This record gives sequence, C-alpha cells and structure tokens, in this order.
Amino acid sequence: MQQRTRALTSFLFFVVVSSGAHAQAAPPARTPDETARALIQESLERGRAYAHLQSLLAAAPMRLSGSGGAQTAVMWAEATMKSIGLENVRQEPCLVPQWIRGSTATLRVASPDEALLTKLPIVALGGSIATDPAGLSAEVVEVQSFDELRALGAAARGKLVFFNRPMDPRALDPFEAYGGAVDQRSRGAVEAAKAGGVGAIVRSMTLRLDDFPHTGAMRYEEGVAQVPSVAISTAGAERLSALLGRQPRTRLTLTLDCRTAEDVPSANVVGEIVGSKAPGEIVLLGAHLDAWDIGIGAHDNGAGCAHVLEAARLMLAVGARPERTVRVCLFMNEENGLRGALAYAETHKDEIERHVLALESDRGGFAPRGIGTNATGATFERLRSFLDAAAGSGADRLFVGGGGADLSPLQRQGVLCCSFLPDAQRYFDVHHCGRDVLEAVHPRELELGAGVIAAFAWRAAAADVVLERPAKR
Amino acid sequence: MQQRTRALTSFLFFVVVSSGAHAQAAPPARTPDETARALIQESLERGRAYAHLQSLLAAAPMRLSGSGGAQTAVMWAEATMKSIGLENVRQEPCLVPQWIRGSTATLRVASPDEALLTKLPIVALGGSIATDPAGLSAEVVEVQSFDELRALGAAARGKLVFFNRPMDPRALDPFEAYGGAVDQRSRGAVEAAKAGGVGAIVRSMTLRLDDFPHTGAMRYEEGVAQVPSVAISTAGAERLSALLGRQPRTRLTLTLDCRTAEDVPSANVVGEIVGSKAPGEIVLLGAHLDAWDIGIGAHDNGAGCAHVLEAARLMLAVGARPERTVRVCLFMNEENGLRGALAYAETHKDEIERHVLALESDRGGFAPRGIGTNATGATFERLRSFLDAAAGSGADRLFVGGGGADLSPLQRQGVLCCSFLPDAQRYFDVHHCGRDVLEAVHPRELELGAGVIAAFAWRAAAADVVLERPAKR
Repeated sequence: MQQRTRALTSFLFFVVVSSGAHAQAAPPARTPDETARALIQESLERGRAYAHLQSLLAAAPMRLSGSGGAQTAVMWAEATMKSIGLENVRQEPCLVPQWIRGSTATLRVASPDEALLTKLPIVALGGSIATDPAGLSAEVVEVQSFDELRALGAAARGKLVFFNRPMDPRALDPFEAYGGAVDQRSRGAVEAAKAGGVGAIVRSMTLRLDDFPHTGAMRYEEGVAQVPSVAISTAGAERLSALLGRQPRTRLTLTLDCRTAEDVPSANVVGEIVGSKAPGEIVLLGAHLDAWDIGIGAHDNGAGCAHVLEAARLMLAVGARPERTVRVCLFMNEENGLRGALAYAETHKDEIERHVLALESDRGGFAPRGIGTNATGATFERLRSFLDAAAGSGADRLFVGGGGADLSPLQRQGVLCCSFLPDAQRYFDVHHCGRDVLEAVHPRELELGAGVIAAFAWRAAAADVVLERPAKR
Repeated sequence: MQQRTRALTSFLFFVVVSSGAHAQAAPPARTPDETARALIQESLERGRAYAHLQSLLAAAPMRLSGSGGAQTAVMWAEATMKSIGLENVRQEPCLVPQWIRGSTATLRVASPDEALLTKLPIVALGGSIATDPAGLSAEVVEVQSFDELRALGAAARGKLVFFNRPMDPRALDPFEAYGGAVDQRSRGAVEAAKAGGVGAIVRSMTLRLDDFPHTGAMRYEEGVAQVPSVAISTAGAERLSALLGRQPRTRLTLTLDCRTAEDVPSANVVGEIVGSKAPGEIVLLGAHLDAWDIGIGAHDNGAGCAHVLEAARLMLAVGARPERTVRVCLFMNEENGLRGALAYAETHKDEIERHVLALESDRGGFAPRGIGTNATGATFERLRSFLDAAAGSGADRLFVGGGGADLSPLQRQGVLCCSFLPDAQRYFDVHHCGRDVLEAVHPRELELGAGVIAAFAWRAAAADVVLERPAKR
C-alpha cells in the first residue's frame, strides 16, 4: 500500500513539474555563480584531469620539441580533444628547433686523488653544443655574477666558468628567486665566452640542496664564440666549490655529445567548444605540450595540458555550454623557441581582436591559489568576482600580473591575459629535472585547478560580460 | 697590495660605523613590518623547524597520551625549549587517559570462499573496548547515516553496523567534508549500540581511496552499551560494500585487544621569552605534543610543535625580543581527552585576562595560507596588517574563525584566538593514518609556516598594539 501511494505521488509530481516546465518554458536556471561552483564541484567529484595527465605521460613521456615523442604527443592531443567532445579539432603547423641531447654528459675531476668527486651530476643545457668527443679539460673559475666574472679580466681565459649563485632562499615567492638567478643559465655560456672561458657550468635552478641537475634553455649570441654549457646539481655545486677552495688548480673534464639538427615540422593542437551566442568571440585556454626530457614533464607542463583540456570537458560534463567560444590550444615548443606561440599569433592574426581573454597554465599542478591578470579597473574587479565560486578552496584570489610565455605574443597585441597560479613553494623542486614525474602531482590539487579554470573561463565566456583590454603600453 | 687596501678600508668603515653608532645612540631601527619580514626570511634561509621535527620524530615517534613515548616527548620538549633559549621552562602536570591499542585488530570474512576479502584493513578507534579474544562474529548492516540506521528498526539487532558515508569530495574545503562525516567515527558505536548492534565499522575519514585505515577518537555514552568500534580503509569499505551487495548475509569476525587502563600523570610543557616591556601580558603559541600511534604524527602535530618552537627561536635568532611575553605551550592529550588544554586553563586561571592573543597550530605543516581568528572590527584589521610581511608567499590572508581544540577553554573565556592555516587539500591524506610520516612534510613549507607565525606573533607582542577581545557570546 505504501509503495502504491508513493508511486502515485511520484506520478502526480511528474505531471505537475512537466506542466510547469511547459508553462514556464524552462526549469529554474542556475545563477552564473552557481554554475561556476558546480564546475568546481564536478572537478572534485568526477574530474578527469589526473586521468588526462596519466594518459599523456604514458603515451608520450618524452616530448622535447622536434622529437618523435613530441609528435606522439601531438597525436595524443588531437585524439584526446576529440574524445572529450571538442569541435574543430586540428593541428596548426609550425617549424620547431631540433636540439638532441645525445647520450653523454659527464663532468669528471681529472685529478685521481679526489675519488668522491670523480663524477659530478650534470646535464647539458638545452641548445648547448657538444665538446670534442675526447672531452674538454680545463681549470675552473668560480663566480657568483657576470660582474664578478668581468672583474676577473684575463683570469678566466681558457677556463671553465662555474656560475654558483644560488636562488635566494629568502625570497618569499620562489619565482622571484628564480628570476634573480636564471640569467646564469640563459646567458652563462655567452658571458663565459666573452671572458675567454671555454665552457659554462651553472648551478641548478632550485631551492633544494640535492643531486638532481635541472636543465633549461640557454642561448648563444651572434658574434660570440659558442662554448658548451651544463647545469650541475646544487649539492654537486657545493662539493665542487669546496674542492676549489682546497685545490684551486683542479682540472675538470667535460664531455657532451648533444647537437642541434635541422628545424622540423610540428604543430600546435587546437580544439573548441563553439559558443552558443557569440561564437566569434574567443576565450583561449593554453598550455604547452612540449617538455624538457629530464623527468617526464608531469608538472611542466603535463599538468597545464590536463588543466585546460579538463576545464573544457567539465563545461560539457555539467551541461554548461559557454556563450562565447572556448578554445583550447596546446602549444608546441614553449621550452626552447616559442615557435608555437609565434605561429598561433600569426595564424590567428585576423582574429586577435576577437580574443576576449586568454589564460595560460604553466606553473604546475600544485594546490591552486588563484589567477593572475593584466586586467585593470572595472575589468579586474569583474574577473575577481568570477573567483567567488572558489571560496573555501584557497584558490579564490585574483593577483596582478598575468600571462605566461605562450601568451606573450598576444599580450604584446593588447589581449587581456591571465595565468593560473598554483602554490609555488615546491615548484622548483621538480622544474626541469628528474623529479618531475607523475608521483609529484596530487590528484585532488590537479582537479581543483581544472575546476577553478573552468569556472573562471566559463564566466568570462558569458556573452554579456564586458571585459576591457588593458591599456597598451 | 690589493689585500692590504681592502683590510684598511674595512677598518676605516668599522671606525666610521662605530662612531656613528655612538653619536646617534643606536643604528637605524627596523620598522615593525621590516622585522616581521626579517623573521620570515630568516625562517626560509636558516630555519630549524624541520630539524625540530626530525628530532622529535626520532626521539618519540609514538606519542599516544599515557604511553611511555608521550613521556619521552615531554622530556624532549623540555630539553628542546631550553636548548633554543626559552626561559621559565617547566612541565605543568595533568592526568591523562591511558588507552592501549594492543596488538590485534583484524576483520575477517568468515565465509571461506571470499579469498580476496579474508582480511580487511582496519584499526581500532581510540577509546574502543576489546572484543572477546576469540573474536566477535556477526552479520553486517551497511548504512550512510544515523537516521538510516534508526529507520532499520530491528534489522540492526545483533549486527555489526557499517557506517559508510564518504567525506563529500565536492566540499571545496576538506575540513567541511570532514565535519560532515566525522559523527560516524565519534558517535558510531553509541548509535550502533542504541540500535541493538554489536559493533561499529566506520569508513575512514579521508578523501583518498586507499588502504590506510585512519584512527581517531570515539566516545561511549553513559547508559548505552559499549560495543567495539573500528575504522576501515576507504578502499576496504568499497570492497566490503560490494561484497554485501553480492552476499548480504556475509558474516565478519572482528578481533580487537585494545583496552583502557588507569589515568596516568603527564604534562604540558611550557617555555617563554619574557617580554621586554610588558612581561605580564602574554601571547600564547600552542600545539599539541601527543599524537595518534598510527604513523608518527609528523603533520598531526609534530609540525605544529615545530612551528611554535621555531617561531620563538626565530625571534631570538634575529634579535627581536618581543615586548610582551611570548609563551610556547606544547599541550598533552589533544587527541583523546583535551586534558592538557583543560589543565592549562585551570593552572593559569588567574592570568586568563592577561592573554592578549593565543594562536594554535594544529592543521599540519603544508604550505601556509594565513591565519584564522575570532577577532572582529578594528582588531581584525590590525591583525590582517600583521600579515603584510608575508606578501608574495601566498600566506598573507586573515580568515574569519580562529582557535583549535586546545584553545577552546580559553576561547570560551573570551580570549582572542587564532589558528594557523596551511593548505588543507592534502591534509586528510595523512591525518591519523600510516601516511603521517616525516617524508610527507616539505621542509620549505614547514619553515615558511614557522616564519609567518613568528612574524604575526611578534607584531601582536608589541606593547602598544591594542588587541580587543572578541565580544562574549
């Protein structure tokens, strides 16, 4: 009896609700803030960001620009975008540099009585030339800055220049510490050569003291001799410095067989959710698909790829089709050339003005803190309110300063740019080194990031939201 | 020659600086914000919080109230406070409960044809009685809530009640999810007994799906039968639920040999930096020294102990003696009795009014987000400004809501209370389970926490800072 009563009640309820729906045209709509919240909750309950990341790392653990692995990643991205329901999925071609690490990178103490130091943990910096196959043997001069090197005058001639200025642990923001030390990596070889040096050994860019050397891009300069350039682990740098304190005339032998080959074709991978009301207006979500070949690029930038793919998928999963077009672009070659970013700006030059907002995720998959932006005034306040949906998660702050490397060509053209900002305290533990593996990514932290990006981007994609470009500088 | 010139210059510089110091009576003073910043920078450059934590975990990995390990921890705390230069170091006695886990906690499927499920990962909940040594065999009834259990009526009689409501993954703040599920752990045994059940099996309090059971406190109620109570891992809970779906009449055998013995004497450990201007006014920094005996309590609450000890040490290290007295209290028995907190309130009942501010760290050692407080109005704004020194670290927010369990007796008496708030997304991965080990703590994140607490407490300890008590409720 009770059962039959319940069935009847359910039936009557269905009739009433159905009639109501017909009479009022639609069920009560969620507010924009409620939809944004639903996107974040969906990410935490049924998010697939970590699954995307696992899938990418399994399919293409090595994604250095120009490699076969990077091409596998391009195919993975195209297939994944289709599988999650994106439209207009395509490759957009670009030419990329092809630096090949080779199989040898050793730094040995020539003197046989330093048994503990016969091998120091190094990796070639990306773009470096090789040494002679027999190795390059020289004494070492240790400096903390380019000024100190220049002040040495002739003393650096014929030497390996050892740049040993640590990232400043006192910087509260590790990116500030990175910014204060990374010139040694990017320009160390040039400055070493200008001083008459024969090679550059650079202390790794990390706040940890350990034996993981960290790679990264370095550059040569037209008209300056090219010398080999390597990163040494921070603990290795300390050992080397101590050795030089005891034995200043120590000779090291550096052997590298890396090389640069011809540029090769590659591609950005693009997919969209076409906007329901203003399909010609674009909210761009970007992350780079390439990665350094030490570790497997789980945080840098598999996490970013997972974030932006999942942000789009979440919108489809909760039935929240954006009114403006949400475009996902996985950029090629952020790490050592930015060719994908430049190609994107060129390919889409006629629609730059229609980019309402562009957001990049390239700071890893740690617990999100919020979003940075170059927006000002009322637009800044509007974007800030979009993060109300993240209240309670610790990810609801809007910071001044937006856009990463892949957005820089768009930012120069006045596009409103944002960058997703996870907590940074652990980032340089893993950045460009062997620690950057799947186990370093926390599933819930990654999913939450995707949810916050989805909520923010979905609100920015509402057709009636006015988002003004930042004033051109 | 160059050497001699440098030495001469240094000498002259020393004379000039020394004369200047004499002429002007003192070197230019740092602003309060600069000192606060210096405390944080010191923590990041030369912090000892992680060293304190390593030392505690090595000396007393097992710190369950009433155990020999907890007494070792008391001695460690006293010695450590003295070694870092605190004054008035002493033990303040309290009686604590003595629950003894014993050596057996098994949950087996009686049916021999479920080979994969013959043993399920459980731990006794703190306070549980034992089973008969031969074990307790019964069928199982699975529920999601106390209401569902009550609605079952007689169906729960003679059964093991399996409380399987997960923490809600959709909660953006994991503590909200914990608050929504933990009644099962604390009251499950009472509700099971009221329904005629013979034991309680509670799904572990974590957002992860894994095989680490999580312990924690449970209570019995006067006049309600006492039944054994255990936590099962979340993955074990899923397996058990699936088994019950296939075979509802499955019988399990639970065997526990835990027991409660007589209360024993223990102590809070207290040390101070006596204030230079207002020694009778107290800024209290607290954390609990006891821990559950699964894992080694690295985050809960070795990290909190390290935070508050180090916060005080940092003040001495940078020569910033506080004007009010900074008192560090390591509380005993937070986890299963709060006897230390009650004893502190009783021992210091005549100086409660002189507690200007009390801060507790009991949310682990993850990357700090800021501080929560029960302050209102101008005092809230004043405390907020104390966190300006943490700008850039992501730890500079003041949140509404302060004080943890150990401060609750003080909070009830109107003391201005604060709680240190690290990121919470990973906290319940480790909380009260075997994952709570040293490797789960990130050194820089821990040090930064100590630095932020030091900066905040030092500013609150300035004699001229007006901090009003929150209105009594």
